[in-house]
Amino acid sequence: MTTRLQLIPLQDFPLVEPGDKLDQLLLESLQANELGLEDGDLLVLAQKIVSKAEGRYVRLAEVEPGPEAIALAEATDKDPRQVELILRESREVLRSRPGVIIVEHQLGYVHANAGIDKSNIPRVDSDPSVLLLPKDSDRSAEALRLALAAAFGAEIAVIINDSAGRAWRNGTVGMAIGSAGMEPLSNQIGDPDLFGRELEVTEVAVADELAAAASLVMGQADEGCPVVLVRGARWQPAQTGSRALLRERELDMFR
Amino acid sequence: MTTRLQLIPLQDFPLVEPGDKLDQLLLESLQANELGLEDGDLLVLAQKIVSKAEGRYVRLAEVEPGPEAIALAEATDKDPRQVELILRESREVLRSRPGVIIVEHQLGYVHANAGIDKSNIPRVDSDPSVLLLPKDSDRSAEALRLALAAAFGAEIAVIINDSAGRAWRNGTVGMAIGSAGMEPLSNQIGDPDLFGRELEVTEVAVADELAAAASLVMGQADEGCPVVLVRGARWQPAQTGSRALLRERELDMFR
Repeated sequence: MTTRLQLIPLQDFPLVEPGDKLDQLLLESLQANELGLEDGDLLVLAQKIVSKAEGRYVRLAEVEPGPEAIALAEATDKDPRQVELILRESREVLRSRPGVIIVEHQLGYVHANAGIDKSNIPRVDSDPSVLLLPKDSDRSAEALRLALAAAFGAEIAVIINDSAGRAWRNGTVGMAIGSAGMEPLSNQIGDPDLFGRELEVTEVAVADELAAAASLVMGQADEGCPVVLVRGARWQPAQTGSRALLRERELDMFR
Repeated sequence: MTTRLQLIPLQDFPLVEPGDKLDQLLLESLQANELGLEDGDLLVLAQKIVSKAEGRYVRLAEVEPGPEAIALAEATDKDPRQVELILRESREVLRSRPGVIIVEHQLGYVHANAGIDKSNIPRVDSDPSVLLLPKDSDRSAEALRLALAAAFGAEIAVIINDSAGRAWRNGTVGMAIGSAGMEPLSNQIGDPDLFGRELEVTEVAVADELAAAASLVMGQADEGCPVVLVRGARWQPAQTGSRALLRERELDMFR
């Protein structure tokens, strides 16, 4: 049976600082929003607050770009120090053109600029910093899931999302760069359809669809709502992270 | 301000047959579900019911594969008649390997097998048919939007979604292959962020995020819920379709 799906923003989530305990902030915010977590609930967190809590800032003044970064910065018209960080965070540069460097991040995501973001970072023009992606977003999601599941005695899941560009299509969409407690792919290959024939291939990236749905609520330009509670979604509990979403290199036809 | 986002499946939507008036079916189903449409509401329809209402079935027995289709069918281990239809529906084959042909559809979407689907089609094994994408899904969406907006006197939007694969990531997600009444991209470039600095680039594919969110509710393996009412989403009214989601060929680095 299908049921209503609700996406509930946590209002007035505080600005996150390095060293903050995100699980505590989440518990306090849920309480302030008069929300508890129930079996089947899922929290989607914006990548930025996870990175901030983990102190993933890097002061550009402390970055010494190497020759590869300097050449690529020139070709793409970017800050060589930022390019140096992009290269350090990545396994491989897939494509580049002025303004954009598409890489495979160390964690396997294909991402513009390795997800390094200058927006929503406190402005210190004389000493700018950038914010890297979380060190291991599946592990971060799992730690939060354990803490919240214990606090509420509920079977829940956690997704960390980020806005990512796509091949062939304009605009970013929310995607899951970390998850815990759920199967990120819903494998519906072979489920009988309405007429009893087997579906040929229907493996659905449920975690990415949830990440995209939450992104609608989070908005983009302010950070007022970096946490969304999703209630009424169908997902399969599992002790796994988000890696299954990453296409195996040898099956990837678009590199 | 952020508000709760609700996705409400229309329960017991009837099976759609060629020639059915979808606007009438939608009005009846909304009534049966005791739902009206209000300003800001948005309906997401699964591509299949639009295609079916438009009679986009093709009997494979009537398809004569040409030499290109026969060669590509051999290379990809597919039915040559289906490959012939894929080629007819497409502008260009981007990639292929056994089981998969990635094309640019006539309407500009990059899509596996040109979106031609054998699942959820009445089983007539002796005389199988396939279902093509709607002829012009933006136009189909606009016709439905006009009818529904008039019936309820409300400013609404309509999206037609389909499950599509992505480069680099496993699993399909719902994407907008047609839309009406809304800006498919929310252009947030230059909106001030919390710290007053301009965002560098944040153009969000809102229509795709809505399509993905609705896909969660639709499920995949049955066709029990091909229509989802989205309430509480932020979208910008506009007299435009979904074409802005398609990346201009000269900016596309992944072909």
